[in-house]
Amino acid sequence: MNDTPPAARVPNSDDAPLVLREDRDGVATLTLNRPQARNALSVGLMGALQAELDAIHQDSTVRAVVLSGAGSAFCAGHDLKEMRANPDRAAYESLFVQCSKLMLTVSRIRQPVIAKVHGIATAAGCQLVATCDLAYCADTARFATPGVNIGLFCSTPMVALSRAVGRKAAMEMLLLGDLIGADEAARIGLVNRAVPADRLDAVVAEAAGKIAAKSPLTLAIGKEAFYRQIELDVEEAYAYAARVMTENMLARDAEEGIDAFLQKRPPVWCGQ
Amino acid sequence: MNDTPPAARVPNSDDAPLVLREDRDGVATLTLNRPQARNALSVGLMGALQAELDAIHQDSTVRAVVLSGAGSAFCAGHDLKEMRANPDRAAYESLFVQCSKLMLTVSRIRQPVIAKVHGIATAAGCQLVATCDLAYCADTARFATPGVNIGLFCSTPMVALSRAVGRKAAMEMLLLGDLIGADEAARIGLVNRAVPADRLDAVVAEAAGKIAAKSPLTLAIGKEAFYRQIELDVEEAYAYAARVMTENMLARDAEEGIDAFLQKRPPVWCGQ
Amino acid sequence: MNDTPPAARVPNSDDAPLVLREDRDGVATLTLNRPQARNALSVGLMGALQAELDAIHQDSTVRAVVLSGAGSAFCAGHDLKEMRANPDRAAYESLFVQCSKLMLTVSRIRQPVIAKVHGIATAAGCQLVATCDLAYCADTARFATPGVNIGLFCSTPMVALSRAVGRKAAMEMLLLGDLIGADEAARIGLVNRAVPADRLDAVVAEAAGKIAAKSPLTLAIGKEAFYRQIELDVEEAYAYAARVMTENMLARDAEEGIDAFLQKRPPVWCGQ
Repeated sequence: MNDTPPAARVPNSDDAPLVLREDRDGVATLTLNRPQARNALSVGLMGALQAELDAIHQDSTVRAVVLSGAGSAFCAGHDLKEMRANPDRAAYESLFVQCSKLMLTVSRIRQPVIAKVHGIATAAGCQLVATCDLAYCADTARFATPGVNIGLFCSTPMVALSRAVGRKAAMEMLLLGDLIGADEAARIGLVNRAVPADRLDAVVAEAAGKIAAKSPLTLAIGKEAFYRQIELDVEEAYAYAARVMTENMLARDAEEGIDAFLQKRPPVWCGQ
Repeated sequence: MNDTPPAARVPNSDDAPLVLREDRDGVATLTLNRPQARNALSVGLMGALQAELDAIHQDSTVRAVVLSGAGSAFCAGHDLKEMRANPDRAAYESLFVQCSKLMLTVSRIRQPVIAKVHGIATAAGCQLVATCDLAYCADTARFATPGVNIGLFCSTPMVALSRAVGRKAAMEMLLLGDLIGADEAARIGLVNRAVPADRLDAVVAEAAGKIAAKSPLTLAIGKEAFYRQIELDVEEAYAYAARVMTENMLARDAEEGIDAFLQKRPPVWCGQ
Repeated sequence: MNDTPPAARVPNSDDAPLVLREDRDGVATLTLNRPQARNALSVGLMGALQAELDAIHQDSTVRAVVLSGAGSAFCAGHDLKEMRANPDRAAYESLFVQCSKLMLTVSRIRQPVIAKVHGIATAAGCQLVATCDLAYCADTARFATPGVNIGLFCSTPMVALSRAVGRKAAMEMLLLGDLIGADEAARIGLVNRAVPADRLDAVVAEAAGKIAAKSPLTLAIGKEAFYRQIELDVEEAYAYAARVMTENMLARDAEEGIDAFLQKRPPVWCGQ
C-alpha cells in the first residue's frame, strides 16, 4: 500500500514497542505494532495498549485518540500461538478478563476513540472496531468473527458486535465466520463509513481534528453519559441525562460556548 | 417552498399561539409556531405542546397526530437566549425535566405521532424526530445534535437518538456535531423515509390517513405495548405481550375486525 | 414457481403431517405443511413444530435447521378461523403462551435456525422470520405485521420484530400494517439478504452447509451465549462471555480447531 502509515515501516524487533504513540494537535495516534503477527493481541500488546489508554485518560492535552495497525492488518485478534503455549484455565481466564477490561477502557476513557481500519480486523480485532466510539475503514478492509471456524466461538467479540449492529447481521458473522467487505461493514453499522484507501488517513484526520477542536470537558461528559444512559430504561435515562445536562450547563465551557454562539464568535475553551 | 403549510404563513406576533392545532378526518396536526426563532423549544412552546398532547390523549376523535414546524425550520432545539437569561441551576433543571417529560409524553399518548420534517431538526428538535413513532422528511431536511459545538453535549437528545439509530451513527452525530442530510437520516433509521419536498405533505397524509382508519383501541393497545415490552428481557416481554394479545382478542374491535376479514367485508370499529 | 421445494407438492390431506422434516448432511429442513391455509400456525401445526424442534435439540446428528413453507406462502400467522371458533380467554391465553414458547424454543435449541422465505411471511409468520438466527428471502417474499388492520395489534410478533430491526422501521410495519418487499426487509435487517427466487435454495443450502461443517459444540456454546449476553449490561456481559470463552477454550474441539489452524490442516471435530 502506498499510504502505509510511518508506524508500519518500523521494523518489529524485540526492541520495538508493541504500541506506538504519536501526538499531534491534541490527537494521540496509537498504532498496534506487531505487523509480522498481524497485530495479534498478545498479553504484552494488550498490556501496552491498556497502559497507553490509562495514561491518555489522565492527559488533558489529548482530545481525541486514533487507533491504527502497523503493516497490512488492522488486528487479527488474540495470539493463538501464545494461548496454546499456556493451555490452562487460569491463563485463559486471565487473558479474557484482561481483554474485556481493555475493551471497557476504550469506552470509558475521557477522549473519543476512532478506529482507522485499513486491513483485516478479525475476532478480537473486529471487537476493537465495534468497541471504538467511531470507526472509518478503507475499501481494502475486511472484517470477521471467525472463531467458529477453529472451534472457539467469538463470544467476547460478540458482546461488542451485537451492540454495534443488528442481530441478524451479527449472527451471520458469528455463525458463518466469513470475512465481510468494507461496504457491508458500513451498511450494517460496524463502521461509520468506508472510503477509498488513499482517503482513509484524511477522513480520520478530519474527524479527529473536529473532535480535538471541541471542549474536552464537554466531550468527556457526553461520552460517559452515552454509555451510561444506554444501559438504562428510557425513564431512568432521561432522569439521568437531565441531571447531566444541568451540570454541563453550569460549566464555564457551556457558558462560553453558548455566549460565543449568540455573539457569533469562536469559543475559547478552558476545559472547566 | 411552494408547499409551505398554511400554519407557516401565520405571522408570529405576540398574539399568535406557540403551537397551532388543526384537526381533519381524525388527524390532529400540531405545528410548532415560532418560525422567526426556528421553532426553538422555549418554556412557553414546550408548555403549549405538552398541553396539546395531554388534551389529544383524552380526545377520542383523534386517531393520529402529525408534528410539523412553521417557517423554514422544523425545530432548532432549546431556546439558548432564554436559557442564558436564567442562568441558575433551578431554571436549568426545570427546563430539562420539562423537556424530558414532553418527549416521554409523545411516546405515551394513545395516538401514534408522526414527525413531518421539512427543514432543520437540531438538538432537542432532532430528539423530537427520534422520539416520534414515525418520521418522514423532505430532501431539504437536515439533522444534527450540535451541542458539542457550543460546549453543551446533547445528552438528553441522545437518549432518544441512541434508541432510534445504531451506536456508531449516534456517536458520530453527537461527537462531530455536523448536519446530516435527509438520505443519511433515512439510511441510519432516524426517519422512515426521505422524499422530494413537494411530496412530503402527501406522504405524511397517506400514513396518517391509514392510521386514522384503524381501530383507535387497537392502536392504543399496540403503542403502549411497544414501548413497554422493548424495555423487558425477551422472556418477560413475551409473557407481557401474550397477556396484551389475550386482552386485545377479547375486545369487540378484534372480534369485528377478524370476522370482517373472514367475511371479506370492511370492519366497523366501535373503539372498544 | 419453478423452484417449489418437493415438500410443497405433497398434498395436504388429513393424513399429511403438519410439519415435514428432511435431514441431509447434518441439515434438518422443517417445512410448514398447510399450504392451502398458507401455513397458518394452528394449534396443531405449532405443536408439531415444537415437537420437531425439541427432538432436534437432543439430536446430535443435526448441525443446522432450515425453516421453510410448503406452497406459495412462508407462513400467514395465526389461524384466525380456529381462533374465532374458540372465543374464550382460556383458549386465547393458551394459544399465545404456546406460540411464545415456540418462538423462544427457536432461539434456545442448540442448532442455528435459518428461515428460508420464498413467499409471504405475515403476523406470527413474520415473527418467525424475525426470531430465526438467520433469514434469507427470495425477491418474491413479502412481510407484514398486519394485525392492526383487523383490530388485533401484532403485540407478540413485535417482541421479535423490535429486537431484529430499528424502532422506526418496526413501528411503521406495526402501525401501517402494510406489506413490505424483500429489498426493504433486507435494508432494515429483518432478513440477512434478498436474492433472486431461483437462487434462494442454493443460498440457504450454502449457509446451512457452512454451519454444518463447524463444531456442533462450538455452535451450541455460541448460540446460547449470544441470546444470554444480549440481555445483560455490558459489564455483566463481558464477565459472562469471558467465562464462556474460558470453558470453550478448554473443550477438545477448540484445542483441535486451533492446532489444526496453526498446522494448516482441516480440523476434525469430536463434538466435545
